[in-house]
Amino acid sequence: MFTVIGERINTTLKKVRAATADRDADYIKDDVQKQEAAGATYIDVNAGARIGHEEEDMIWLLSVIQDTTQLPLCLDSPDPAILEMAYGMVKQAPLINSISLEKDRFDPMIKYLKGKECRVIALCMDDSGMPKSVDDIFNRAKTLVTELENIGFKRHDIFIDPLIQPMSVAAENGTIVMNAVERIMTELKGVHTTGGLSNISYGLPQRKMVNRVFLAMMMARGYDSAIMDPMDREIMAVLKTADMIKGNDNFCMNYIKGVRAGTIVG
Amino acid sequence: MFTVIGERINTTLKKVRAATADRDADYIKDDVQKQEAAGATYIDVNAGARIGHEEEDMIWLLSVIQDTTQLPLCLDSPDPAILEMAYGMVKQAPLINSISLEKDRFDPMIKYLKGKECRVIALCMDDSGMPKSVDDIFNRAKTLVTELENIGFKRHDIFIDPLIQPMSVAAENGTIVMNAVERIMTELKGVHTTGGLSNISYGLPQRKMVNRVFLAMMMARGYDSAIMDPMDREIMAVLKTADMIKGNDNFCMNYIKGVRAGTIVG
Repeated sequence: MFTVIGERINTTLKKVRAATADRDADYIKDDVQKQEAAGATYIDVNAGARIGHEEEDMIWLLSVIQDTTQLPLCLDSPDPAILEMAYGMVKQAPLINSISLEKDRFDPMIKYLKGKECRVIALCMDDSGMPKSVDDIFNRAKTLVTELENIGFKRHDIFIDPLIQPMSVAAENGTIVMNAVERIMTELKGVHTTGGLSNISYGLPQRKMVNRVFLAMMMARGYDSAIMDPMDREIMAVLKTADMIKGNDNFCMNYIKGVRAGTIVG
Repeated sequence: MFTVIGERINTTLKKVRAATADRDADYIKDDVQKQEAAGATYIDVNAGARIGHEEEDMIWLLSVIQDTTQLPLCLDSPDPAILEMAYGMVKQAPLINSISLEKDRFDPMIKYLKGKECRVIALCMDDSGMPKSVDDIFNRAKTLVTELENIGFKRHDIFIDPLIQPMSVAAENGTIVMNAVERIMTELKGVHTTGGLSNISYGLPQRKMVNRVFLAMMMARGYDSAIMDPMDREIMAVLKTADMIKGNDNFCMNYIKGVRAGTIVG
């Protein structure tokens, strides 16, 4: 099924930053409960925005969130020291966000990940920058999978982020990433693909329409996870409907339940 | 680009049947103008519902419609005699709806089509009934393309209808038809794929949601035409958005135009 990585607990968001600075546990708890009710599979936790406070903010957030939900967490930091500390606090195997092929990130992260019981998001980024073609994305994905398999990761614990680039920048950006996802899911069988969908609509009006249609199209090509806002009811309705069309919803029961609950509206 | 076959002039629809029986040209003209404004590529004309009146109704409808629009027509009848008469009336090459592999239909239709200047919709139906697998759909498509090429048709004049079957009947129906479309578009390069999308949602609540999401998913797999209602603004907005994401809309100009016109709303 589809893995929804709920993106809302991120201190780059103003209200979350304020709630974190003020140690407003009720705000965080309420948000996490809503994400869970809306269908999040993981709760992403990013405490990076208050410079100099990442460690203490992460500790506080993890403790508040784990008082609130049994959902597994997605630990979102580029700093292995923060991840190491957070890993020691979580109650179940986390998803680590993220490794990439950029040398400064790859070397410490691969060392950190070795022997950990976790899943990992792997970005198709290297020191030459964003990928420029289907081959670029695929080859980076393949290298990441090989390196992670070498330190003991199973494919089903690897989430490849092909790095979605805006349609407003180049007309082929949608096709490139959709073709890359299909190729990754076919040739690297067993891995997942994920990422932040909304980059696709950067610079365009009515972005939510673009994001929704793009999610359905990506799912048709094999995309099986996203870092997204589960409280966006319209995109979650598209997700449930597309999952049903893909055959992941026996007797259409989840779809019909969504309709009855008023969350899927034609 | 995507070929929209506007399905509204069909005498099985109550209002169209009444307008046809009453020779209410204003009703028909108004509907056709609206379909054209909404983005129809072809206007489908089906005069089959008033038993015993198909020929006179078709003559009247064709004359009214061709007084109204320059759009090419899609002649929708199982009867080669009606199609022969209609073919003599149309001002530009029509799309013929349809041939299939059912013996009673195939033999007279292939005879009728030979030497005609037209395009054709070819249904993946044979005397054993609806297709049951990706191979079933693909093999029927291949046979139809071969037979039509044998009588002089070019691939770009052939629209394969893979026959969409309801999700409420079997959870794999969506996957089967999406995989078949991708295989047809890849292995029979040059043909189009089309059909009535809304069968997918038969028996489900909130059908329009299912139809919209399914259109985006089918387009991601190569589907490039549909027999549909161009006056359904929401599905047309999805169509334009998906076409933009596929890279068929340089600088996203059609998409942005749609947003400015208020027809694409996030």
